[in-house]
Amino acid sequence: MNPCVTIAVDAMGGDHGPSVTVPAALACASSGLRIILVGQESLLRAELRKHSATDHALITVRHAPQQVEMNESPAYALRSKKQSSMRVAINLVKQGDADACVSAGNTGALMVTAKHVLQTLPGIDRPAICTRLPTVHGQVHMLDLGANVDSRAEHLLQFAIMGSVLCTVVDQIQHPRVALLNIGAEEIKGNEQVKEAARLLSTSHLNYIGFVEGTGVFMDRVDVVVCDGFVGNVALKASEGAAQLIHHCTRQAFRRTLWARLCGWLALPVWHQLSRQIDPRRYNGASLLGLTGIVVKSHGGVDATAFANAIRVAQSEVRHAVPQHISRYFIPMDSEQVL
Amino acid sequence: MNPCVTIAVDAMGGDHGPSVTVPAALACASSGLRIILVGQESLLRAELRKHSATDHALITVRHAPQQVEMNESPAYALRSKKQSSMRVAINLVKQGDADACVSAGNTGALMVTAKHVLQTLPGIDRPAICTRLPTVHGQVHMLDLGANVDSRAEHLLQFAIMGSVLCTVVDQIQHPRVALLNIGAEEIKGNEQVKEAARLLSTSHLNYIGFVEGTGVFMDRVDVVVCDGFVGNVALKASEGAAQLIHHCTRQAFRRTLWARLCGWLALPVWHQLSRQIDPRRYNGASLLGLTGIVVKSHGGVDATAFANAIRVAQSEVRHAVPQHISRYFIPMDSEQVL
Repeated sequence: MNPCVTIAVDAMGGDHGPSVTVPAALACASSGLRIILVGQESLLRAELRKHSATDHALITVRHAPQQVEMNESPAYALRSKKQSSMRVAINLVKQGDADACVSAGNTGALMVTAKHVLQTLPGIDRPAICTRLPTVHGQVHMLDLGANVDSRAEHLLQFAIMGSVLCTVVDQIQHPRVALLNIGAEEIKGNEQVKEAARLLSTSHLNYIGFVEGTGVFMDRVDVVVCDGFVGNVALKASEGAAQLIHHCTRQAFRRTLWARLCGWLALPVWHQLSRQIDPRRYNGASLLGLTGIVVKSHGGVDATAFANAIRVAQSEVRHAVPQHISRYFIPMDSEQVL
Repeated sequence: MNPCVTIAVDAMGGDHGPSVTVPAALACASSGLRIILVGQESLLRAELRKHSATDHALITVRHAPQQVEMNESPAYALRSKKQSSMRVAINLVKQGDADACVSAGNTGALMVTAKHVLQTLPGIDRPAICTRLPTVHGQVHMLDLGANVDSRAEHLLQFAIMGSVLCTVVDQIQHPRVALLNIGAEEIKGNEQVKEAARLLSTSHLNYIGFVEGTGVFMDRVDVVVCDGFVGNVALKASEGAAQLIHHCTRQAFRRTLWARLCGWLALPVWHQLSRQIDPRRYNGASLLGLTGIVVKSHGGVDATAFANAIRVAQSEVRHAVPQHISRYFIPMDSEQVL
């Protein structure tokens, strides 16, 4: 742990606000991380009091009078919420007062505000949202998950480079296997965007292994899956939906009869072990890659355990200097050298 | 059951060929369905002998010397495999010798061949692949799942109409709730294709309820989910991948210790009940909608139980005269009247 790392937390974002963000921040501070809680000072201090942590040495509070609502348009938030907890948290990164920021707020507003305040790294057209997902072989990084719709092939190449760098520096995988998400593994399949991106990736210096189908995200040996944000967002959320359906039906089945309840109760340690392995909270925290600073998005509806994980994702990216490593691949901007 | 319904089965298609298609056909014939098995006659007769069913009154064999391979291009299959089991089965529908055909073979080849032989209904530009999926509320029809990439908004409208008709006639739902798959439920989100399709659907006579996210496919109250084939295919397969991952991890967890094994064994009746509810085999059988005849695609790697379900999907569409009902919505071709 590096005690000098400081994370700005948008403490008002998400469905539960300070009741989730403050205990998560305290959990992270207890392992040596410095946290700036950004939001309504009175609410934040009240929440800190609840946890008997009003004078925690590693926690400071920065007042921000406004808040971005979940249904607000990104453009409106950018224009009219200059004193929002989200904006102030991002400003702290820009000013160098924090090494990274974390928010569970409105994704579109976070994306647009972060891009406006921090700017993209030279040579990168568009930032991308990247998350880790569990697979049968361990985990995979997938991007873009909704920062961009209608991406061109060159954007997919940039996403691939950013994902590959992230995987190399954070997971210490020397030549990450990069795949393009497609509707079939054969060369003849897919839309024009994907076919053109495949041509670009084949001639890059990345370890491009070809196409992967939706099932392959979770089942194949691949480290980075690249796709357009519309496709990635739908794929990710459909997977979450399928997982929720299975969870729902499994709970129902183990509650239907007395015998089923007994079996479910006896198997409690097995369920706990299983949940440790594929608990979505473990994978909470999506990175906005391609910016000059580190911004991590948490799911909106999560609990403190999951939000703390998002903070730890930010901490890990600070420790591994992810933006600096990404920028090295894009400078000079001459595309021959980039690849 | 209607004893007059005849289904042409591409008995060579899929990963397991006659060892799956023949027992599935026998299971369906035992409930009064007439089946024409199309493929290598010697292999099919040998398989029938294994099941002591050489002289089954409801099963006939039609020889087809060729077979479409799983990795062949659709164009090559169309040009060079005119005597394939797939092509001959589709021809039987065209000639009126069968009411529908079912294949577990190469999806692209099936799509292209079916479109070439049977043609689309007047007013329909492109056929779409439609399947049922389990949800927390029952089931949903989703299309397109890969027949088309880069669909325009008008195509999405046509898919919506076809899905709505299918749902009305097969599920007896009078005003099916139709939604567009998008990356957010708000109007401002999505790509141009989806926004334009939303405008078209809002002014149609369909019961259009707005956007649905990936999670909503499985969790929301919706009867028909409409999307571009690229997006739909990726979403469907990502869901399957997530389900396979959960299945894999659950099996592992219930095998890790003696106690876990005991719990898993005691819970066998619960697992069986659960599998009856969300077993993917129950949902096998995707319809190629928009053609003049009925063509159903089975997954390639399935067993006889699942393949028999695909045959029953075809039977149900015959009984409910799905193509005839769809064509009523598209004639006359004047779009004002269509909507």
